[in-house]
Amino acid sequence: MDATSRIERSLERALSFATVGGRPPLLCKAVQHAVFSDGARVRPRLCLAVAEACGDPYREASTAAATAIELLHCASLVHDDLPCFDNADLRRGKPSVHAAFGEPLALLAGDALIILSFETLARECAVTPHRLAPLIATIARSVGMPNGIVAGQAWESEDRIDVEEYHRTKTASLFMGATAAGAIAADSDPQPWIEVGKQLGAAYQVADDLRDMVSSAKEIGKPCRQDAGNNQPNIAEELGISGSVARLQEFVTDAIEAVPDVPGSDSLRNLIHGEVKRLMPRKLSKSAA
Amino acid sequence: MDATSRIERSLERALSFATVGGRPPLLCKAVQHAVFSDGARVRPRLCLAVAEACGDPYREASTAAATAIELLHCASLVHDDLPCFDNADLRRGKPSVHAAFGEPLALLAGDALIILSFETLARECAVTPHRLAPLIATIARSVGMPNGIVAGQAWESEDRIDVEEYHRTKTASLFMGATAAGAIAADSDPQPWIEVGKQLGAAYQVADDLRDMVSSAKEIGKPCRQDAGNNQPNIAEELGISGSVARLQEFVTDAIEAVPDVPGSDSLRNLIHGEVKRLMPRKLSKSAA
Repeated sequence: MDATSRIERSLERALSFATVGGRPPLLCKAVQHAVFSDGARVRPRLCLAVAEACGDPYREASTAAATAIELLHCASLVHDDLPCFDNADLRRGKPSVHAAFGEPLALLAGDALIILSFETLARECAVTPHRLAPLIATIARSVGMPNGIVAGQAWESEDRIDVEEYHRTKTASLFMGATAAGAIAADSDPQPWIEVGKQLGAAYQVADDLRDMVSSAKEIGKPCRQDAGNNQPNIAEELGISGSVARLQEFVTDAIEAVPDVPGSDSLRNLIHGEVKRLMPRKLSKSAA
Repeated sequence: MDATSRIERSLERALSFATVGGRPPLLCKAVQHAVFSDGARVRPRLCLAVAEACGDPYREASTAAATAIELLHCASLVHDDLPCFDNADLRRGKPSVHAAFGEPLALLAGDALIILSFETLARECAVTPHRLAPLIATIARSVGMPNGIVAGQAWESEDRIDVEEYHRTKTASLFMGATAAGAIAADSDPQPWIEVGKQLGAAYQVADDLRDMVSSAKEIGKPCRQDAGNNQPNIAEELGISGSVARLQEFVTDAIEAVPDVPGSDSLRNLIHGEVKRLMPRKLSKSAA
């Protein structure tokens, strides 16, 4: 089974436990809307690619880790889109969860997905319990506080933002969690893989800011120029377009160079190259070609 | 160390990992405000009382379970108080988290506490991993969907509410989780203890609805007559005051009768009696005396 099928099947299995019986009906629909809406599954694919580079001997553990990470990512998008944050009605070209189901159900759907993430890890790792505690600790750190995406988002409420810490915690942290979890699930040392996640996460943040600045809503499936409207730091505004593209390429080079030289590492390097192509705004990738 | 000290010390320890370095500053303050605001700690005390009735041989596991349950309870209060739900500016006689820190930080504080709950379980049970998976599964079920408090809260967004399911999931579920987790942490069968949690949770819901109807904001430290204002089901409105008091006493009797006859069960029965006294609105406890 290829990575994409493993991830989709595992997400369906996780959601089937949460929505069994279909009650309460609207909450079931809201969590399904949040998870199955053409996400690129970048973080879980990264997690599985690292696990595979490490031999992937415990596939139920790596699949569970990848699934938990994607559920947390989906939860963060649902909450980020809410009126008190980005106030975005559009996500991946469809109505965001609160636009489709209202604010109360969007808030609850996010909560439910966070809980389901840890529940899924516990369920799928029950037979290999010695990996469960480090996986939960690593994944929780990458989304919680002080170093995870919740802390990152909270920097937006401070008068003085530490921009580097803001980007590392808001975006790179879950990439670091994804690579670390992939290694831990395979009983390998996560340390060398964390650097890969860090550089790739930084690249991703630049790409996201570039897309926010130069793309159309139709191209990226969500509102553009949100950062300027919400008065949030944006790297592309700061460095300009050519400066940002150069910075993006530096981060990607660093990410690829950080990949340890192990037998299965080629597919990880390919994944990184593919992501960069996917993320570069169309008008820039043409001019760069 | 008595139960109250164990719980407070463990909550402080859990929060110290989340707030180490004090960054981001306002989020640190918001989670501390949410957790240290004179909560009665009913659910963690219940969890520890069950663990003690079962001999409590693994105190780090029972303490972690009690702590995780209280963190989840605090998270649910922070999110429930938000404008899109109860819109309550007062909690335990102080400003609610969103009243003190704004809506974005209240939402993030709730998310952070949910994550911290599972992170704490993983950290404290790392040396006894075979208890970790069942504890997480049990606690996650009691707060998630379809049977936990998130699902319970989501029933309020449905046109047709199943009132029994609504009360069981919204309130009793976490009491059931607390008693079950106490038994699991002590390597005991949770099944007989779940019924204790179920009856006590039902009693608690009646008491809460009674207090909402007949108490003053000063007495209970939060706004009253919220249910009527928010058009939410309220048992006391439905049964009347004397009918509700009778129902409350039935549930308490059933809870006490459900307590298995083991050496340490007296302190659990005492806890239940004490809680009922605490929860009964003053004017009713006088007239009942």
